[in-house]
Amino acid sequence: MEQIKGGVTAAKGFLAADTAAGIKYKDRADMAMIYCETPCRAAGTFTRNIVKAAPVKWDQHVVYDIGRAQAVVVNAGIANACTGAEGMEYCRKTAQKAGELLHIPADEVLVASTGVIGMQLPIERICAGVEAMVPALSGALESGQKAARAIMTTDTREKEAAVQIELSGKTVTIGGMCKGSGMIHPNMCTMLSFVTTDAAISQELLQEALRADVEDTYNMISVDGDTSTNDTCLLLANGMAGNPEITEKNEDYEAFVKALNVVNETLAKKMAGDGEGATALFEVKVIGAKTKEQAKILSKAVITSNLTKAAIYGHDANWGRILCAMGYSGAQFDPETVDLFFESRAGKIQLIKDGVALDYSEEEATKILSEPEVTAIADIKMGTAEAAAWGCDLTYDYVKINADYRS
Amino acid sequence: MEQIKGGVTAAKGFLAADTAAGIKYKDRADMAMIYCETPCRAAGTFTRNIVKAAPVKWDQHVVYDIGRAQAVVVNAGIANACTGAEGMEYCRKTAQKAGELLHIPADEVLVASTGVIGMQLPIERICAGVEAMVPALSGALESGQKAARAIMTTDTREKEAAVQIELSGKTVTIGGMCKGSGMIHPNMCTMLSFVTTDAAISQELLQEALRADVEDTYNMISVDGDTSTNDTCLLLANGMAGNPEITEKNEDYEAFVKALNVVNETLAKKMAGDGEGATALFEVKVIGAKTKEQAKILSKAVITSNLTKAAIYGHDANWGRILCAMGYSGAQFDPETVDLFFESRAGKIQLIKDGVALDYSEEEATKILSEPEVTAIADIKMGTAEAAAWGCDLTYDYVKINADYRS
Repeated sequence: MEQIKGGVTAAKGFLAADTAAGIKYKDRADMAMIYCETPCRAAGTFTRNIVKAAPVKWDQHVVYDIGRAQAVVVNAGIANACTGAEGMEYCRKTAQKAGELLHIPADEVLVASTGVIGMQLPIERICAGVEAMVPALSGALESGQKAARAIMTTDTREKEAAVQIELSGKTVTIGGMCKGSGMIHPNMCTMLSFVTTDAAISQELLQEALRADVEDTYNMISVDGDTSTNDTCLLLANGMAGNPEITEKNEDYEAFVKALNVVNETLAKKMAGDGEGATALFEVKVIGAKTKEQAKILSKAVITSNLTKAAIYGHDANWGRILCAMGYSGAQFDPETVDLFFESRAGKIQLIKDGVALDYSEEEATKILSEPEVTAIADIKMGTAEAAAWGCDLTYDYVKINADYRS
Repeated sequence: MEQIKGGVTAAKGFLAADTAAGIKYKDRADMAMIYCETPCRAAGTFTRNIVKAAPVKWDQHVVYDIGRAQAVVVNAGIANACTGAEGMEYCRKTAQKAGELLHIPADEVLVASTGVIGMQLPIERICAGVEAMVPALSGALESGQKAARAIMTTDTREKEAAVQIELSGKTVTIGGMCKGSGMIHPNMCTMLSFVTTDAAISQELLQEALRADVEDTYNMISVDGDTSTNDTCLLLANGMAGNPEITEKNEDYEAFVKALNVVNETLAKKMAGDGEGATALFEVKVIGAKTKEQAKILSKAVITSNLTKAAIYGHDANWGRILCAMGYSGAQFDPETVDLFFESRAGKIQLIKDGVALDYSEEEATKILSEPEVTAIADIKMGTAEAAAWGCDLTYDYVKINADYRS
């Protein structure tokens, strides 16, 4: 497996475009389109929030009932959530417009929105944006990168990832882009993530691969504990790599799943590290667990703890907050057998052995915690299962951004 | 029922004292003692965090196995959590010291600690503090107030409440004090709350009344979603009011429960409103619910949402975040029937009708949200049950306080 440059246009046959449609932002692109020259098998996972944005409902229909798609239209600025029948109508109009211009059925066009809840989309501008993007579609890596930038809201940088693998002698590429920054506590998926591949694979296995991997990647990050109304992860496969179609869980399927995991995990970590106001990516690994589920619950409780996140911002080795968060997570373990370590590029230090503090150097711990990527490792000594979760620190800027997001 | 001045010394027979023992703070009292002239029935509820501080384990033994207590020794600054066998030994030594000087059994002395996790108590100073407090014990209201101040950590003000009721012609008083501020997301109880009463009531009913009421009061507040290792709520009853002992769920029991609720709810709201860095008490009422449980889950999800809390700090009527938090709470409801209001001393405004935004005045909404006590009311139109939860806004100061709490 090789990590390569690029995003949604890395795999064969996928084109992208972006445009400044003037939905909410000035002087920046705020719409993106992904298009494939041939119909794709479509898989998707969506928010578990009861309050589902209109585009989520639209895409659920496309993915679950049709299972096939050829284009995705995305806008930033307005989430089209809590918008009633009018919001659903705007999804239909957007898909219809794209379908007409691309000569494909409207219900093979996926739509996605991110931004403020409760406002209606300026549908004229959305349709004008679609018109502007269709002739600009291009398979250049740069087009993918510009699309990744257009879908940002409070994100500070675009997020892309791509890998290549060999399947039965054919080169298969998987690439993706995502955005996410606040309201990030995915449950079934994160805000918006789009992954494309030229692999040949059945829709059933594509969906199964995505659904399983989302649990280990996007669903293991948290910026603020708030599960969005718009969480959507879409995966399109067009088969243009020419590999023998994957229709059973063979060696090729395993290789595909591993490569998909690298793309998803990379994108998920980029979202966590670019959480609103964040200065650091905070990774928590729980090892020595009895089951993976237990390790997941424990690691996720720690990255979700406001107190721990504020301590990470302060470069303060406040391990008591980590043990406390593990303690209220709901998972069972014996606090008196836990070993705890901090690790970063600056080194590794053990803070606790068997639940009791060691005489470690606070100075060294602070040095380790001052890096832009910090890992806490908790060994609970009950077995061999493990899991990782990713979050970020809690900063003044998180409060600043969210105290007046709408203005 | 009459709300009166005072706290733990309001009820007959209860004395209090405080002292500057030099545990962690300089130039302020950091230990408090409550003492009753006669043995009391003792009830208590404790943290559900697996990581339980040593004093929690000590008090569970006193409350559950003995059911009787006559004194409480509290310290601020160090939580005596994650301190192993040494921490348990210090609880025993503290209780023993108090027992000797007060001429009561050591296992009728309750202990409580709050502060940094993982440090050992300076036991010599604790014992010296106990020695200093015993001769200073007094039933004056001022002594109760000073005790309430001594148990503060990052709290900005002391928290007391007291009420009087008539039970079968006798005046019964219930008074209490508490501290809280960060690591507040009680599960079974909040950080430290001490309530005393001169009511005559059996230990079984005392415990039952407390256990039930904690679910509607302390367990309905949240500052940051972090359930502490030290949460403790103690209720002592000495029977000195001379009312006929309550041994069954009669009229007197109902009146006692109502009065207890007023004291507990008042203390709980004071904790929420004095959350770390808070500028406002944020109350969320869910009405029209099918069950009380459903209303509780929904209201608690909203007061726990970082995004909603940041919006309250910004006086921003970002109702989308409230609906979003209700949506991911886990409780079922129909987003398209919800009505939503904001209310404060400055007025009341409806923002949503049947899930869709009304054309309300943002200016008026901001005015309502600029008060120190703000209420959001969600009517889900499914029945007649309701519940309230209390939290606070999320501010720069919360981050500041917690980025470097230990230094």
